[in-house]
Amino acid sequence: MSQNTAARRGRGRRPAAEVRAGVLAAAGHILLAEGLRAVTFDRVATEAGSSKMTLYKWWPSPGALAAEAYFTQSDRTLQFPDTGDLRTDLITQLSSFIRWLTDEGAAKPVSELVGASQTDPDLAHAWSNSYALPRRELARVRLRTAQEQGQLRRDADLDIIVDQLWGACYHRLLVLKVPFDDTLAERLVDQALHGATPHTT
Amino acid sequence: MSQNTAARRGRGRRPAAEVRAGVLAAAGHILLAEGLRAVTFDRVATEAGSSKMTLYKWWPSPGALAAEAYFTQSDRTLQFPDTGDLRTDLITQLSSFIRWLTDEGAAKPVSELVGASQTDPDLAHAWSNSYALPRRELARVRLRTAQEQGQLRRDADLDIIVDQLWGACYHRLLVLKVPFDDTLAERLVDQALHGATPHTT
Repeated sequence: MSQNTAARRGRGRRPAAEVRAGVLAAAGHILLAEGLRAVTFDRVATEAGSSKMTLYKWWPSPGALAAEAYFTQSDRTLQFPDTGDLRTDLITQLSSFIRWLTDEGAAKPVSELVGASQTDPDLAHAWSNSYALPRRELARVRLRTAQEQGQLRRDADLDIIVDQLWGACYHRLLVLKVPFDDTLAERLVDQALHGATPHTT
Repeated sequence: MSQNTAARRGRGRRPAAEVRAGVLAAAGHILLAEGLRAVTFDRVATEAGSSKMTLYKWWPSPGALAAEAYFTQSDRTLQFPDTGDLRTDLITQLSSFIRWLTDEGAAKPVSELVGASQTDPDLAHAWSNSYALPRRELARVRLRTAQEQGQLRRDADLDIIVDQLWGACYHRLLVLKVPFDDTLAERLVDQALHGATPHTT
């Protein structure tokens, strides 16, 4: 639903789910285009054609709204494919994530959201529950399928693999602040699958 | 040098390196005890027995001072051992890092420093240059030695290993916000060394 359509329909007539979706879409657009600071209840209410009271009722803070909006925006881009070949699927998903951060401009809002979540408990709660933990669960599901198919060892530690693949990207983005490159997804996946010790030992 | 000693000596007599070390020690103590917000030029100057002018001259912002102070504080704890056995040394270093975050209380100041560095360019610059990149270089040196000794494959990707070991810890601390546990260091190292695919393929 475009922002204009939302605005034209006026207030108080739409089902709650539709209003909520409209608010999240508007907040997501503002977040990706202008960054976290631009996501205020005033601005989002205006762009979504909703009342500010509605936003106050549903979200404890603009930061919490922004975190949930980020999940909605990224969901389409960051799906986990299942072609039956784990290596290919992990490279596809990580490449999408890296493109999303770099070419599609999510690096700034993601940095701002994770950064602010270190000192804003409402945002931290929304980030963990709306984004980080559900996304880890999607990764686990894909890895578990591969494990059942014998593509990962029976005793492979799926949570550690998640930490090592996506954690590596966040490490570069947030901690080292070094650029990503085109070979990163493949190098991460191959190191996670095959390890670093000589194959003969 | 204790804070009292520094204060007693008064101003303008000590060599610059000594003053600088005293300021960094004072800032580090305040950071670890009370968090990033408590690290102000006023407070640090008072506790270090230095003039505020000196601090303004050497650091562009209290955040930049805090980042450098963090490196000084953590240096002693986060040394890279070299016993000749890479697996043992990596587990030792990562266990120290995890204990430093949990038992020694660094989780909060580290989260605050990395969080604030997402929107504070002076702090970001100091964090990268005083802490994150030098620490990555120390890890690379230890990994390179192991590679020369045949404990890592010739084509092992050392930067990826760094991302996967320490990045995993930051992922849990900053992004997932899940607790660390006592087995984490060992699980991270074994997964990095041996990978997740069945050994027979």
